[in-house]
Amino acid sequence: QIMHDMTRYFTPQILAGKRVLITAGPTFEAIDPVRGITNRSSGKMGYAIAQAAQQAGAEVTLVSGPVALPTPRGVQRVDVQSARDMLAAAEAAAQHADLFIATAAVADWRPANAAAQKIKKQASATTPQLEFVENPDILATIAATPRARSGQLYCVGFAAESDNLVEYASAKRKRKGIPLLVGNIGPNTFGRDDNELTLFDDQGHKRLPRASKAELARQLLREIVQRLPG
Amino acid sequence: QIMHDMTRYFTPQILAGKRVLITAGPTFEAIDPVRGITNRSSGKMGYAIAQAAQQAGAEVTLVSGPVALPTPRGVQRVDVQSARDMLAAAEAAAQHADLFIATAAVADWRPANAAAQKIKKQASATTPQLEFVENPDILATIAATPRARSGQLYCVGFAAESDNLVEYASAKRKRKGIPLLVGNIGPNTFGRDDNELTLFDDQGHKRLPRASKAELARQLLREIVQRLPG
Repeated sequence: QIMHDMTRYFTPQILAGKRVLITAGPTFEAIDPVRGITNRSSGKMGYAIAQAAQQAGAEVTLVSGPVALPTPRGVQRVDVQSARDMLAAAEAAAQHADLFIATAAVADWRPANAAAQKIKKQASATTPQLEFVENPDILATIAATPRARSGQLYCVGFAAESDNLVEYASAKRKRKGIPLLVGNIGPNTFGRDDNELTLFDDQGHKRLPRASKAELARQLLREIVQRLPG
Repeated sequence: QIMHDMTRYFTPQILAGKRVLITAGPTFEAIDPVRGITNRSSGKMGYAIAQAAQQAGAEVTLVSGPVALPTPRGVQRVDVQSARDMLAAAEAAAQHADLFIATAAVADWRPANAAAQKIKKQASATTPQLEFVENPDILATIAATPRARSGQLYCVGFAAESDNLVEYASAKRKRKGIPLLVGNIGPNTFGRDDNELTLFDDQGHKRLPRASKAELARQLLREIVQRLPG
């Protein structure tokens, strides 16, 4: 706690007075009351950004999927499970935010019909088949709101790819309609305490070399502040 | 540490000289390098049993799916992801064990073909379909080995059901060919620090009322020791 207070005291307050919304972690999409689909996101990058933003003077809301991380000090945390829950919580907080950083690894699809009871192995001699429906795109949805389009809410996305990062991430930035997208290689970051990031904006791309997620969070916030309008 | 050592000192050494194998947590069955199917098991019950067994004098091997729990002191932990990995690790440890307690929530099925690269949302206009193949039954496999059938290895199973516990758990005990099965209601236990258990053996069933998982672990081990042959 003393360490935290001192860190905040000595951190340049580059986000003083700003409201920052961050989504983090995986989502969990129920198949039945027991099983579900998730992904390898640990939430560490998003939690590091939430902490760094709070230390830089921001009022931070962290909408989090199921992770095993402590809530960063001074951060307001909202726990959710599914992509639809996360969208609802993010939309509510986005109405008052100046900056939205979408680090969560949101499921693209969810099972078309979650079973109300646990699917029994012996109930069918055959193996089950799972059909999916597309989940809402949280980042694109919020980036399309009037506040985001007018520049009042600056939106930053994250993309975890397993290959072809530059190609996929550049395309994703344009498709989502956001000014800044942060790319990383999923299998090189999930669960780790360090990472490397590549920032994509309308000028091209820029690498932030491998460092701790805490250090990258501070660097990323400086990059974002330089790009904020007005 | 001092607490732990004192607890062990004052705990009746009812498992002195016994080798105990415990599986715990969910499995994670890859869909692609990022996504996978898992379940709501936190691993807490299995970890509590591992700790209680170690404190009761046993040499404990804990084969664990992905969970966010510290390794209980004095316990040998082996980390695995998929059901097939868990089976391999459990089979190896079972060769020298006197007692096998299968608390893990093992996936009944896994995706038939895990993709080597992340499945792209835009690659197909349609949503994906997932086909499954059945996973090996770890408990039934080990219960069918000569050491288990001869009584050298006593096998205890766990069943998490969302309803009809008595009916499903009794049937499961017989199907798996084990002397003792411990039932609980999945949605009432996942992630919680307390639980209630129902023990099923060839005499019928017996309830252990709601208590902390640490307390239930000690009660369960006493019940098991009473049933061990010879």
